[in-house]
Amino acid sequence: MGQIYIEKFTIPFEMADVNGNLKLPSFLPKVLEVSGNHSAQLGRSDVDVWETYHLVWIVTDYEFIVDKLPRFGQEVQIRTEAVAYNKLICYRTFDIFDQDDQHLMTIKSYFALMNPETRKIVSVPEDLIAPYGSEKVKKIARSAKYTNLDGANQVEFFVRYFDIDRNGHVNNSKYLEWVYEVLGYDFLKGHQPRRIHLKYNREVTPGGKISSQYQLSNLTSQHQIVSDGQINAQAIVEWRTNDL
Amino acid sequence: MGQIYIEKFTIPFEMADVNGNLKLPSFLPKVLEVSGNHSAQLGRSDVDVWETYHLVWIVTDYEFIVDKLPRFGQEVQIRTEAVAYNKLICYRTFDIFDQDDQHLMTIKSYFALMNPETRKIVSVPEDLIAPYGSEKVKKIARSAKYTNLDGANQVEFFVRYFDIDRNGHVNNSKYLEWVYEVLGYDFLKGHQPRRIHLKYNREVTPGGKISSQYQLSNLTSQHQIVSDGQINAQAIVEWRTNDL
Repeated sequence: MGQIYIEKFTIPFEMADVNGNLKLPSFLPKVLEVSGNHSAQLGRSDVDVWETYHLVWIVTDYEFIVDKLPRFGQEVQIRTEAVAYNKLICYRTFDIFDQDDQHLMTIKSYFALMNPETRKIVSVPEDLIAPYGSEKVKKIARSAKYTNLDGANQVEFFVRYFDIDRNGHVNNSKYLEWVYEVLGYDFLKGHQPRRIHLKYNREVTPGGKISSQYQLSNLTSQHQIVSDGQINAQAIVEWRTNDL
Repeated sequence: MGQIYIEKFTIPFEMADVNGNLKLPSFLPKVLEVSGNHSAQLGRSDVDVWETYHLVWIVTDYEFIVDKLPRFGQEVQIRTEAVAYNKLICYRTFDIFDQDDQHLMTIKSYFALMNPETRKIVSVPEDLIAPYGSEKVKKIARSAKYTNLDGANQVEFFVRYFDIDRNGHVNNSKYLEWVYEVLGYDFLKGHQPRRIHLKYNREVTPGGKISSQYQLSNLTSQHQIVSDGQINAQAIVEWRTNDL
């Protein structure tokens, strides 16, 4: 079993939507911060990884399994484990619990190491990953079957200055906002995600606009983010009706 | 002198722009949280104000005076004081210092109390404001001279689901994003604000779109946010060139 790291966190006002439920896109930077704190504690901060290996971490996929969304003002426990890795991918889970230790949701995350000069993914160095105690495996399974959407509905979004992070590209949390927003206020006020698969294919750079395309059928929505004729990200969201 | 309240805060990744400088719109919810913590410590939390007085705080104006923007990863001290009040307006400052106690910026904020049923501003009850130790004054000065913009440039923004906060209207930090974004990536990457005046006139409700209008001249930009033919907010920003 991998090293487990735990932090407490109280959901602030700006992470709550109009219903008082956690905004998942706003929560992604928080879980990455927790992951970063875990790594730093093991001597593997982003700065260490850069200085020792000349590599940076990138997220390739997320999966969210939501039993119950955390609420505004709620204190939760974020429990993360670097579960497993293979040649190219590291698999980390975040489990969120309430104050009574009831499980609220799981975020599965998949990371790779990139050489920022060549923009190529490289093999995971054994001594980089050793402190995490992760299991080495042949295959890291990811279950989603994304299909390319033809003739989907679409909404265009200009890439905003504040979408761009210090890495010079659109922050990975913004894609999930583009996925949500196409469904419109009334749908989003009345529904919440039960499960989300999200895959990053290609970074979005500053300037220009993206097309957020989707098909919604039987409370499952399929999504792709497209720019310059190429797919930047794909998502599948299973929704449930809010009990308000 | 009013009660002073202090918190430390480290600028997280998601609050940093592509240059590593603090995103001011993202920082607004943080200073309001600090203000809320100060009030709670004095027995005047939002819940207390609601339960005892059936009133809610609203922000009417901000002014930012920036000596130096805080940077990603920097630990800052947020020092807030409820300075003064008159019949309708309470005036609070936030001063941000670095670890060497050097002053980085000041945020002046102006609050009023609203009855949420009538949507009307009410007089500040003396026993509500007493614990803050604020000075009672005749007049709370606000210096900006906003002019209505005719024939300005404009960019339209759809109001997003995630722009709406638990109060059911666009969160006050979003207006400042609409002010910034019209100036475009290249301008924003090369400049930072020296001073901002921001005034809220009228709330923006869910659905629909707003027009973010502006005129830029000699490193000063004037702004108005307009929807349904009415002005929702006005701003004046003085910019300086980034030294990169």
